[in-house]
Amino acid sequence: MANEVSYSTFNVEKLRQFTVEVFLKMGVPINDAELAADVLIKADLRGIDSHGVARLSGYVRLWQKGRINPTPTIRIVHETPSTATIDGDAGLGLVVAPKAMEVAIAKAENAGSGWISVKNSNHFGIAAYHAIMALEKDMIGMSMTNASPLVAPTFSTERMLGTNPICYAFPAGNFPPVIMDMATSAAANGKLEIAQRKDVEVPTGWIQDVQGYPTTDANGLKKGGSLLPLGSDRDHGSHKGFCLSSIVDILSAVLSGASYGPWVPPFVAFLDPLENQPGQGLGHFLGAMRVDGFRPANEFKEHMDNWIQRFKSAQTAPGYDSVIIPGEPEAAAEVERNQNGIPLISVVVEDLKCLSSKLGVEFPEEL
Amino acid sequence: MANEVSYSTFNVEKLRQFTVEVFLKMGVPINDAELAADVLIKADLRGIDSHGVARLSGYVRLWQKGRINPTPTIRIVHETPSTATIDGDAGLGLVVAPKAMEVAIAKAENAGSGWISVKNSNHFGIAAYHAIMALEKDMIGMSMTNASPLVAPTFSTERMLGTNPICYAFPAGNFPPVIMDMATSAAANGKLEIAQRKDVEVPTGWIQDVQGYPTTDANGLKKGGSLLPLGSDRDHGSHKGFCLSSIVDILSAVLSGASYGPWVPPFVAFLDPLENQPGQGLGHFLGAMRVDGFRPANEFKEHMDNWIQRFKSAQTAPGYDSVIIPGEPEAAAEVERNQNGIPLISVVVEDLKCLSSKLGVEFPEEL
Repeated sequence: MANEVSYSTFNVEKLRQFTVEVFLKMGVPINDAELAADVLIKADLRGIDSHGVARLSGYVRLWQKGRINPTPTIRIVHETPSTATIDGDAGLGLVVAPKAMEVAIAKAENAGSGWISVKNSNHFGIAAYHAIMALEKDMIGMSMTNASPLVAPTFSTERMLGTNPICYAFPAGNFPPVIMDMATSAAANGKLEIAQRKDVEVPTGWIQDVQGYPTTDANGLKKGGSLLPLGSDRDHGSHKGFCLSSIVDILSAVLSGASYGPWVPPFVAFLDPLENQPGQGLGHFLGAMRVDGFRPANEFKEHMDNWIQRFKSAQTAPGYDSVIIPGEPEAAAEVERNQNGIPLISVVVEDLKCLSSKLGVEFPEEL
Repeated sequence: MANEVSYSTFNVEKLRQFTVEVFLKMGVPINDAELAADVLIKADLRGIDSHGVARLSGYVRLWQKGRINPTPTIRIVHETPSTATIDGDAGLGLVVAPKAMEVAIAKAENAGSGWISVKNSNHFGIAAYHAIMALEKDMIGMSMTNASPLVAPTFSTERMLGTNPICYAFPAGNFPPVIMDMATSAAANGKLEIAQRKDVEVPTGWIQDVQGYPTTDANGLKKGGSLLPLGSDRDHGSHKGFCLSSIVDILSAVLSGASYGPWVPPFVAFLDPLENQPGQGLGHFLGAMRVDGFRPANEFKEHMDNWIQRFKSAQTAPGYDSVIIPGEPEAAAEVERNQNGIPLISVVVEDLKCLSSKLGVEFPEEL
């Protein structure tokens, strides 16, 4: 039996203001609070509801636990002309990551490319936010992060890796930019949460139970199971999903000095980080490359348009209108939601109202 | 009914010498012939039989068609301190890619990282060969390439992308390096060829038929079907496999000026490249990053060892001994085959004997 799910819609700017004020209550300086709110609201605008204001009270709880430093000194601890390691000083990843991306972009301006490994950070919101920052400079943007361990490697029953997303953003000419932002698990945790709320089963291949057997129980993860890597099982390439997730973990954390694998500090505040942490906080890896470090930007953009046009017109399978260009649905959601407001599911609204009364920050009326 | 498959084993150095002599017959200068042979033999040593000497006659046929220039002038056509575009002058990818990787490594030595997009090249063998080159300098190596269109994007029936592999190589301390080398399709084409030779069915989710329906017919590709992206179907994240393959295509070809998507020149010589090519030849993207551009190399290696140790000891699912660390099976194959020789399947032996008599190059006796 599927649960009823209801939504209310909120004005974008009012929801943004609420979010800013919550961060201010945490002691985050105004510029950083606005930046952090922008990252969260961007997720809601782009339709990535799991990573927007739905996470706000999670950040507050981490701060209450003393795991987020609202006034970090973010600094470069090691660098070359095109690389650097940044210490996030336990700040909000929503602030640390965009600032690290600025360093990547500045290095790319001088050296052609910039690659930043970040330690001692927290959850950075949607990966796309940071990669997209490179686009206005005619650069290719890249971002990845490790995350709370939920995914079991191929042949294992232990949660060793996060859903560790990878994002690439490519500028185009007449078409919108091509933006790939993907978890390296078969399904993002957000999709599982949606199935849990609706009380429906999930496809085989998303999760396994605590013993390592396939399950369609959307609550399988809560019962000690684990998410499966992209590919789902060995026959279908789950070892490749395991590799992708490991690449993210190594570049984000082993390279920077953050914690990795099963030691990544959990996003949920009710779980304490494991003892004997091998590094500090969680890690990100961010990059920017000047397109004209390879060929003139206008040439690249013309060919990107040609690439997009050709893929959009590819022969479709029965029942489908066209191939979806990565980033197209999110760009459409952004236009629509900027116009009509952001819909929030009732449990999220209740959660934010609770936060509102706890912190004494006024929550906006629905539209 | 499954076919019988038989193998003969050959001395590594004799097989290498044969391969060098075949390239010499193509007019490839001795140093380049030795390099190209080393790339092919490395694939056979590492157990990637589909990409070793099994492909040798394919390169010869491309040369006979005038599609491979045996004496290319490989040159940088655009560069910044950490990036460059290299024109491969239609040379063997087996020669162009390692030379481009040398440029990436030299740039990394000076600028911390080096990123090379290559146009006007041909098939570059196993991606791992090039990424591994970075390891001895305590660098992280990265390589990718686009390839003959065989893979349909999610929702499409058209072959628009290659199996476009991605490889990362990370140095470790006491353990062997971690090397991830993977096609971005659900199954590599080589696996399909093995099933064809054995005349067995393949798992659902590897290929679709010409109309876009799932099939287990190992010959489905020959009948006009296509390989599926990693993830196999939309529910299991095939859009992510499509994204990964597209990232490889864009970085390798749209960025360099090579041909991309369905225009990538086919490896098989009996198929001519499509008309109105948007670029030159196929493209690669190669990278190297100095580990000590981020943190001291010995620290990184200690943590890589800790990472490997922890993943090796992860709780296993029923029936499995341990999590496989990426690159471990290939490293073991290399030790074993260096000792005992390279086994070749009978169809490959026949093909090489035919090449031997055609070119007048002596083929070694089996062990």
